[in-house]
Amino acid sequence: MRSGWQHPARIVPLAFLCAIAVGTALMMLPAARAEPGHAPFVTALFTAASAVCVTGLAVVDTPTYWSTFGHVLLTVLTQVGGFGIMTLATLLSLLVSRRLRLRGRLLAQAESAGLASGNIGAVLLRVALVMLISESLIAAVLTVRLWVTYDYALGRALWEAVFHAVQAFNNAGFALYSDSIVRFVTDPWICLSLGFGVLAGSIGFPVLFELAREWRSPGCWSTHTWLTVAGTVVFSVLGTLIFLAFEWRNPGTLGPLNVPGKMLAAFTQDVMTRSGGFNSVDLGKANSETVAITIGLMFIGGGSASTAGGIKVTTFLLLAYVIWAEIRGEPDVVIRQRRIAEDTQRQAITVALLGVLLVAAGTVALDALTVDVPFDRALFEATSAFATVGLSTGITPGLPPSAHVVLVILMYVGRVGTIAVGTAIALNTRRRQYRYPEERPLVG
Amino acid sequence: MRSGWQHPARIVPLAFLCAIAVGTALMMLPAARAEPGHAPFVTALFTAASAVCVTGLAVVDTPTYWSTFGHVLLTVLTQVGGFGIMTLATLLSLLVSRRLRLRGRLLAQAESAGLASGNIGAVLLRVALVMLISESLIAAVLTVRLWVTYDYALGRALWEAVFHAVQAFNNAGFALYSDSIVRFVTDPWICLSLGFGVLAGSIGFPVLFELAREWRSPGCWSTHTWLTVAGTVVFSVLGTLIFLAFEWRNPGTLGPLNVPGKMLAAFTQDVMTRSGGFNSVDLGKANSETVAITIGLMFIGGGSASTAGGIKVTTFLLLAYVIWAEIRGEPDVVIRQRRIAEDTQRQAITVALLGVLLVAAGTVALDALTVDVPFDRALFEATSAFATVGLSTGITPGLPPSAHVVLVILMYVGRVGTIAVGTAIALNTRRRQYRYPEERPLVG
Ligand SMILES: [K+]
Ligand SMILES: [K+]
Repeated sequence: MRSGWQHPARIVPLAFLCAIAVGTALMMLPAARAEPGHAPFVTALFTAASAVCVTGLAVVDTPTYWSTFGHVLLTVLTQVGGFGIMTLATLLSLLVSRRLRLRGRLLAQAESAGLASGNIGAVLLRVALVMLISESLIAAVLTVRLWVTYDYALGRALWEAVFHAVQAFNNAGFALYSDSIVRFVTDPWICLSLGFGVLAGSIGFPVLFELAREWRSPGCWSTHTWLTVAGTVVFSVLGTLIFLAFEWRNPGTLGPLNVPGKMLAAFTQDVMTRSGGFNSVDLGKANSETVAITIGLMFIGGGSASTAGGIKVTTFLLLAYVIWAEIRGEPDVVIRQRRIAEDTQRQAITVALLGVLLVAAGTVALDALTVDVPFDRALFEATSAFATVGLSTGITPGLPPSAHVVLVILMYVGRVGTIAVGTAIALNTRRRQYRYPEERPLVG
Repeated sequence: MRSGWQHPARIVPLAFLCAIAVGTALMMLPAARAEPGHAPFVTALFTAASAVCVTGLAVVDTPTYWSTFGHVLLTVLTQVGGFGIMTLATLLSLLVSRRLRLRGRLLAQAESAGLASGNIGAVLLRVALVMLISESLIAAVLTVRLWVTYDYALGRALWEAVFHAVQAFNNAGFALYSDSIVRFVTDPWICLSLGFGVLAGSIGFPVLFELAREWRSPGCWSTHTWLTVAGTVVFSVLGTLIFLAFEWRNPGTLGPLNVPGKMLAAFTQDVMTRSGGFNSVDLGKANSETVAITIGLMFIGGGSASTAGGIKVTTFLLLAYVIWAEIRGEPDVVIRQRRIAEDTQRQAITVALLGVLLVAAGTVALDALTVDVPFDRALFEATSAFATVGLSTGITPGLPPSAHVVLVILMYVGRVGTIAVGTAIALNTRRRQYRYPEERPLVG
């Protein structure tokens, strides 16, 4: 191996590979399937990978294909995947910031006192606590609503509430209803509790911890927290408005709803695009402009070290700042009186461009392996898998097994790739031994 | 105006705007149209913009809609546009490299002696000479071939040869045949002379001049020349192989041809993708994978300061080197023992990402303005316009006028935008007055 791939960054890919392997074996148990016999290998692999990578894409009808035991397995795999990604990414980000700080300035003690001073056990405990509390809150609201309004038996209401709460906070998006949450499109209790669950999970623990400490003083936030919060707010508002604008009259989506219903559905859809994966409107009937913009929002994704996928909102905003600085001719990229390190800029470019490359390759592969899948649907599904969003225009179940394997690879690389590449890069910048003379080729 | 937009960079957009305005007025003359009456405004605007921006997209059937006078106008507009882009871009690149050299190191006299020492008149003369000689050579081959093999009258053979030679060297791609050059798909004389004309035009004068001086010693080439040559060779070979692989059996494209025919057609198609705009196979019948890869190749485009469009092959390769350095953890981006300046890297990112943004916005706009245009065709046409390639899957003539205006904007911004932005940035990097403390947000 090259020296660029050190130990800590290698944990994540290996851990996820193991979890997917175990998950596949479990999902192949006859007990996991509702009908007699066991699930075929590719179906089990796809479902396990989709759960562990908290994607939520499904090749079979989740409620009817899997048994209750299968649904419990899905919950466990999602929880393991979500917890794993949050803790590993949080720990790696601490490691990165410690090393960099120690190497760069000697402010380590002062600045990272908040979270970084705790040992690994403390971090795991705090992540687990936040997770448990959030999921319990979502589950409580869902239970009451399903029990009281929809006349479910209490036991069934509780089980379905827990299932969907876990799916929401972990940004996975499997549902026990064949239509995802379309039947609840105008129910604010269900849509908003799932929506805020997805939002909370998609922000990421480094930011959640900082917000818990300093939510009253945005002036003191780190650049990372500021970018994540600003990006989340901007994309939530902008995405909702765009959905409203393009789908207002579409009879297949927002058309039949009244005005508050339209607004709720647009907001829910926007949040789910940031990697939640539930859908309360049928995306297969959405306008192609909406589909195109959804692809963009999915690709951007949520916060770093969260259960959300994509290139991450910080990466995207950082690149926007780089371009803005470039157009204004500023020598430094400055965000709120902090200069962004040049190697961080290069990391952002690397993550974004490798993402584009991966999605493009995945789309071409899907296209090549199928006969009648339109290009935009292939692009949508590839982006949804890469960004571990789990939204679908409905083509996934009908794809051949080879295309399912392509999607599995996209989910896996999309989930662990950005973290592993980002961390490996950050931990292993080589020292400069000598410099070559500078040159400036023409560009554009 | 901001100080970031100085005088020299503003010349190009203004000059092209004037040329398009004059061209539109001329194309609206009744004499330019074959049938009685004059062309509608949007048709004339589109055709003039397409010619001046050396794109070659057409909303009407070029041979039958326009009169011979119209064809002469097209030739003149293409020649003006191509000559304009080559000379302006070459002069601006000299200006940039002079200023940067003077500011950076004091090697101005030594290094830029070859081309930069000449005055503006000398540069214009050399560009005009190369252009004239190249076009004459192509026209000579075409004339003989059309006259001898296809039994054209000498006058007609000469006229059609000159028309297509101008279109080829200027990378425009209008044709006097309704099927572009599909009828000549297996004729190596015609396909190869047009192909090499396109290639020569797409390399760019800074590189052509350097190659003329030092073609025997690649070790002494500037990084810019080296990147352009390497990229052109790699993409020519790779693109040809990909076309062969995906289209080998397609009955609508390469299928009916024999093996040498397939190879000629694949090579021609690859070269034309780098902004030539002629097509010897019907892209409307190509596989969707081929369409996807063509979109990628069109977006990359040809060399800087050439008649080719796109983000340019140097920009693309530079970004590849940046990612490679990042993955290996190298502190500097080094190409052939030359370190790439950090602001050049940022320029490349800016040009590439603004290009992605523009094409995405154009695609969504085309989608929103039409009813039954599939997403991939909209993306293809938007990319073709932005990269001034002029290939089409056949949808352009049927689009509504509003969509034609979108394509005109894409052609114009794609043609002058990258040059103007690149130059404005390079000329106006501000001096650093003070630096803010550094910060490294999480990425990926
Ligand atoms: K998801
Ligand atoms: K062209």
